Amino acid sequence: MDGLMMNYPLTLVHLLERVNQLFGKVEVVSREPDQSIHRYTYADFYRRARRLAGALSKAGLRRGDRVATLMCNHYPHLEAYFGIPACGGVVHTLNLRLHPDELAYIANHSGDRMLIVDDVLLPLLEKFRARAPFERVFVVSKQNAQLTSEGFEDYEQFLAQDQNNFVYPELGENEAAAMCYTSGTTGKPKGVLYSHRALVLHSFAFALPDAFSVAQKDVLMPLAPMFHANSHGIPYVAVMLGTKLVMPGPFTDGCSLLDLFESEKVTVTTAVPTVWHGILEALQKHPGRWKLAPDLRGLSGGAAAPESLLRGLDRHGVHLLQLWGMTETTPAATVARLKSYMQDLPEAEHYATRCRQGWTLPFVDMRAAGPEGVAPWDGETVGELQVRGPWVAASYYNMPQEARRWTEDGWFCTGDVCTIDAEGFMKIVDRTKDMIKSGGEWISSVDLESALMDHPAIREAAVVAVSHPKWDERPLALIICKDGHQVSAAELCQFLLLKFSKWQLPDNFVFVDQLPHTSTGKLLKSKLREQYKEWKWENAGLVEKKNL
Amino acid sequence: MDGLMMNYPLTLVHLLERVNQLFGKVEVVSREPDQSIHRYTYADFYRRARRLAGALSKAGLRRGDRVATLMCNHYPHLEAYFGIPACGGVVHTLNLRLHPDELAYIANHSGDRMLIVDDVLLPLLEKFRARAPFERVFVVSKQNAQLTSEGFEDYEQFLAQDQNNFVYPELGENEAAAMCYTSGTTGKPKGVLYSHRALVLHSFAFALPDAFSVAQKDVLMPLAPMFHANSHGIPYVAVMLGTKLVMPGPFTDGCSLLDLFESEKVTVTTAVPTVWHGILEALQKHPGRWKLAPDLRGLSGGAAAPESLLRGLDRHGVHLLQLWGMTETTPAATVARLKSYMQDLPEAEHYATRCRQGWTLPFVDMRAAGPEGVAPWDGETVGELQVRGPWVAASYYNMPQEARRWTEDGWFCTGDVCTIDAEGFMKIVDRTKDMIKSGGEWISSVDLESALMDHPAIREAAVVAVSHPKWDERPLALIICKDGHQVSAAELCQFLLLKFSKWQLPDNFVFVDQLPHTSTGKLLKSKLREQYKEWKWENAGLVEKKNL
Repeated sequence: MDGLMMNYPLTLVHLLERVNQLFGKVEVVSREPDQSIHRYTYADFYRRARRLAGALSKAGLRRGDRVATLMCNHYPHLEAYFGIPACGGVVHTLNLRLHPDELAYIANHSGDRMLIVDDVLLPLLEKFRARAPFERVFVVSKQNAQLTSEGFEDYEQFLAQDQNNFVYPELGENEAAAMCYTSGTTGKPKGVLYSHRALVLHSFAFALPDAFSVAQKDVLMPLAPMFHANSHGIPYVAVMLGTKLVMPGPFTDGCSLLDLFESEKVTVTTAVPTVWHGILEALQKHPGRWKLAPDLRGLSGGAAAPESLLRGLDRHGVHLLQLWGMTETTPAATVARLKSYMQDLPEAEHYATRCRQGWTLPFVDMRAAGPEGVAPWDGETVGELQVRGPWVAASYYNMPQEARRWTEDGWFCTGDVCTIDAEGFMKIVDRTKDMIKSGGEWISSVDLESALMDHPAIREAAVVAVSHPKWDERPLALIICKDGHQVSAAELCQFLLLKFSKWQLPDNFVFVDQLPHTSTGKLLKSKLREQYKEWKWENAGLVEKKNL
Repeated sequence: MDGLMMNYPLTLVHLLERVNQLFGKVEVVSREPDQSIHRYTYADFYRRARRLAGALSKAGLRRGDRVATLMCNHYPHLEAYFGIPACGGVVHTLNLRLHPDELAYIANHSGDRMLIVDDVLLPLLEKFRARAPFERVFVVSKQNAQLTSEGFEDYEQFLAQDQNNFVYPELGENEAAAMCYTSGTTGKPKGVLYSHRALVLHSFAFALPDAFSVAQKDVLMPLAPMFHANSHGIPYVAVMLGTKLVMPGPFTDGCSLLDLFESEKVTVTTAVPTVWHGILEALQKHPGRWKLAPDLRGLSGGAAAPESLLRGLDRHGVHLLQLWGMTETTPAATVARLKSYMQDLPEAEHYATRCRQGWTLPFVDMRAAGPEGVAPWDGETVGELQVRGPWVAASYYNMPQEARRWTEDGWFCTGDVCTIDAEGFMKIVDRTKDMIKSGGEWISSVDLESALMDHPAIREAAVVAVSHPKWDERPLALIICKDGHQVSAAELCQFLLLKFSKWQLPDNFVFVDQLPHTSTGKLLKSKLREQYKEWKWENAGLVEKKNL
């Protein structure tokens, strides 16, 4: 039928052109590894991203070719985010917290043709470069060192090779723009390819008032690394809206972040709960030290934020919103925002609601799939969270054996276990591998962990299933106390009984000095399960052991 | 390349399912033609829209078939907005202000197979039904009258024919969902087909904090008719976000609207300036009578809002934002929102900025095309406004002869004349046909009209070009005074000289009792030009005539 709408593709090229046309004066601020502050404008960013695109084209980058980055959160990484896709390439963000063996595997699996690397990360690169497929390596260097002798090229000199005659290719919105490997706790890392369309639609949904409500007049500071799930999508949102962007570099302790919040007038930031805990501790330790923006709001993702964290930050005027998502969902899929008729909930319900992972953004569908089919939205029936939508991955790159992660009717199986209530608020209760099955009943290790972390003496807690001769599995709690604090197993049981039935409590508590984490800060439950699989249950009730 | 994102189409079906799943409790409120208030929830809306889809499918509606509506703004119209597209049909909103001859032409040109009509509009339908192609006509009736004898069917009985076995067709996002004919001031009405994709993307952009900032907790009241450019897109936004919707029926005088603002706690509404003038007059006449929502904000489109209107409404706590758009752009394309670094502008600049039509929403491109090519963004060079984007029409339905409205490089020629400043703020200075060319210099009739309407004695003003023996063309002003007010031509000239040069002033002023308008409330300049084309200029300066 004629008479329809224009066939105008949703690509990052539009965002790049728009930010220069409309918001060229707005600042992009980076805190560099040497703690210096770098400032330039979106007009500067635009010129340099275009030069990167031109230089890459001239260097023979073809449509769909991958260019890897091994970089911190600072302005050249933002240039890579847009310059590489603008010429038809795919920016592949390498996770600098991974083991060199893993990095070598990932670079080969994705077939990265080139690499842009920060000079401070050259020691890491040296550990796997010989095994990596990079044809050319460009170094972002504060020192402007002569690097060619080592087979490296200077990033600035590479940009200078652009001849100011770059013309954008005509990109389709379904072409790949970015790539990220998930740091799964089991199996090989798996690659997710983000299309231009997915990144654009995600940005629209992310910025909505019901999601994270981002406007041009905000100041955005992404705390998630730019190699981790697109830094929660913040760089794309900032460029789409022309919002001032502040990148904190490698400094993510509470005081450093709060200093930057104050000096740059930050209004929106995203981070994992661990970082938020550090911010709260700093606020409690130094009352009145920082003058924060009155509308400062934070997004917390990557793990469930405990109620004490939300309450504590509220007391300091920082409103924390939970989001749920993963690398495979670009990442934002749900947000725990109160609905219009929930604004006056009693305090306890208010926080209970905000502690859920929330309802879906427009165009994301979710369901909980149990062994008996799709679970009802009753807030009780547990099932594996499955999602679908235009910014949900349809497969992993070059990994046909992982097709089992998608159902026959086209949903992605997240590996998270959840309930969904009648209001559509989803709550993660566990990972599929982390649920504890005790005497035929499920116990949520995540609920126990969240509750334990609300205890004033506890810094971190993990709860794992350990096989049990009578009950099949029982929960074992591993506890790190805060410096100068201690607590007994009996006290913890009393504390947990405020929220749990007796049969749901951990049978034993082990006090430890550290817990294993993934490169993105999540508890490495698989390692804990392995470590404690031979645990001998002390037969009668509560036992605590120190530093096994 | 494998590994990419899901192929999940952007269709209205997702919005319909979402609003029921997540926001089934939220109210949809309609003021009926008999002034009664009808209330139901989105869950009710969902059930009835699905039944409409099922009944239409059963009645043999095929993919892409048009179903016309001749309806006011109330809940059955909302059901048509979603029920018809949900089964693959196209909802075609007939403009009930048009002449029956035009309606007959449009219904035939679009090939409407069926019609849904409000009972209060049956007298209008009777005037063209014999010439229209409708196979079946469904009447929305408060009286539940027996209508079959007249060849009409009852809407409620038609819904009852659904057998609860309706299954959505698998719709592509580029299929048509809605249709609207433009009431152009020249030529035949032209049909625009809206794809599902365009309506969805428009809703995302519309709801952004930088556009109209709509959240679930808002209360939306569309004042633009639902047959006029999708009621500015409000019904789609409301259903996407689950926002309470209040439809005012046919009562759009200031007091009636303010009563409804107060009783339903309205926070966002859109209207043409004429309606806003009525609201402001009522506020001024009855100070303190209404307790409005503290964050009440209004969108003004369809014509330029004068500064006095923005200032006046600000004094009553109503923040008015200008948008620019047209039927061919779904409609929103630009919005005049201050940027981050403009928040502290001096008052005069603040209002001057808000009186422009503003910058583009993401994914809309604009340019001003003059005879010498694309005009620079200098705020001075005048050109025809051209736009492109995913919710801009690519052609008119079945009107190949109108292809001249699109440039060879794919831009839509709006027929509006504008400047664009260095900040990307676009300002409409005239219609291509309304600019006045005086001695080789352009004079903007729109600027003169806006300025005249800021005068406290003037209700409405029109300025048209009339041929002149010496200057080629000169401006002639046509003035309606407010009741009980009068003003002289000399006084008006003094008033205009605050903003204009002497050569730009109208040479003559004519005081009249009424001015001709299009069906959507715009000045019908073509008729005025025709009416005054033989105007004899009074030779020396200012002349005023009463009721020529």
